[in-house]
Amino acid sequence: MTSAANFSIALVHYPVYDKHKDVVATSVTNLDIHDMSRLTRTFGLDRYYIVTPVEEQRKLVEKIREHWLSGWGSTYNPKRKMALETLQMEASVDTAVADIEKRTGRRPKVVVTGATGRDNSVSFADLKALIDADPQQPFLLLLGTGWGLIEQVFNKGDLVLEPIRGAGEYNHLSVRSAASIMLDRLFGR
Amino acid sequence: MTSAANFSIALVHYPVYDKHKDVVATSVTNLDIHDMSRLTRTFGLDRYYIVTPVEEQRKLVEKIREHWLSGWGSTYNPKRKMALETLQMEASVDTAVADIEKRTGRRPKVVVTGATGRDNSVSFADLKALIDADPQQPFLLLLGTGWGLIEQVFNKGDLVLEPIRGAGEYNHLSVRSAASIMLDRLFGR
Repeated sequence: MTSAANFSIALVHYPVYDKHKDVVATSVTNLDIHDMSRLTRTFGLDRYYIVTPVEEQRKLVEKIREHWLSGWGSTYNPKRKMALETLQMEASVDTAVADIEKRTGRRPKVVVTGATGRDNSVSFADLKALIDADPQQPFLLLLGTGWGLIEQVFNKGDLVLEPIRGAGEYNHLSVRSAASIMLDRLFGR
Repeated sequence: MTSAANFSIALVHYPVYDKHKDVVATSVTNLDIHDMSRLTRTFGLDRYYIVTPVEEQRKLVEKIREHWLSGWGSTYNPKRKMALETLQMEASVDTAVADIEKRTGRRPKVVVTGATGRDNSVSFADLKALIDADPQQPFLLLLGTGWGLIEQVFNKGDLVLEPIRGAGEYNHLSVRSAASIMLDRLFGR
């Protein structure tokens, strides 16, 4: 078992900021379902959680997932099936944490991410060292949609991961790009 | 001027394979416009070309680009404007190559990418060394949509980049994820 096998990610649609720093629930998009599932499967992670309190959206994603897992889509594109097997819908970050604890018997360390650094940010190398030091320890990496995870989520997390820096001042990657780069830095060969 | 400033990427919608290995033109998607522009701007690259022979699609993307560059969108979200300034539509890989040659006075080295390795693939370290060895040399990285760039494109390119490998056999990243990881490996800090 590699250390990635105890590592999960959560794409959080609430609570996040919008453009005006109001706290909102963003909508789940179809590409976020597929791109991140494929990423999770490629790097051999445990779970890809999509977190939204909106029940209708959880149900809709479940329906899409079912289509590819056991419906017509499962024979049309088996690689999509393999990817979506990692996907699980959750109503909140807390229920995702509880799910990991229930399955593994250990409370995951929650790693918060964002485009802005914090005084207590850990580097990618630091996080990798922590993961490798105890492969049985589960981790949950939180990725914010919209204009990012709200401050309270940062305060509640066990660790804050350093932001990805670009060439200059401009540093506005999509959450899909950021997640791809983070997982490659942690688990890429 | 960093070496990234002479590096461009092209998201190629034709000629690519579909699921049945037929040669097709795929459709441009809205997220591909924005995600890849943000990536290009974040890493300080020269251009992000979207390549499609379908004139209606080129016109539609130009219209979207105009909205964010000089329309109402330019004041609503200036960061989107900064990202889309890197975007340029081209009818073919050849016209993208010609555009770079016209602007820089040098013919770019064309780097082809895909999920399968070739005997003559160069590693990320090899490519990085080539880029750093001559910062004035332009490069154009080709990214395939659909089921990937056709064989003839691989044969015509100057270099083939090694594929990104995951944890096991499964290796089916979205082109958005693959592009993000490639650029981070080449230019990330």
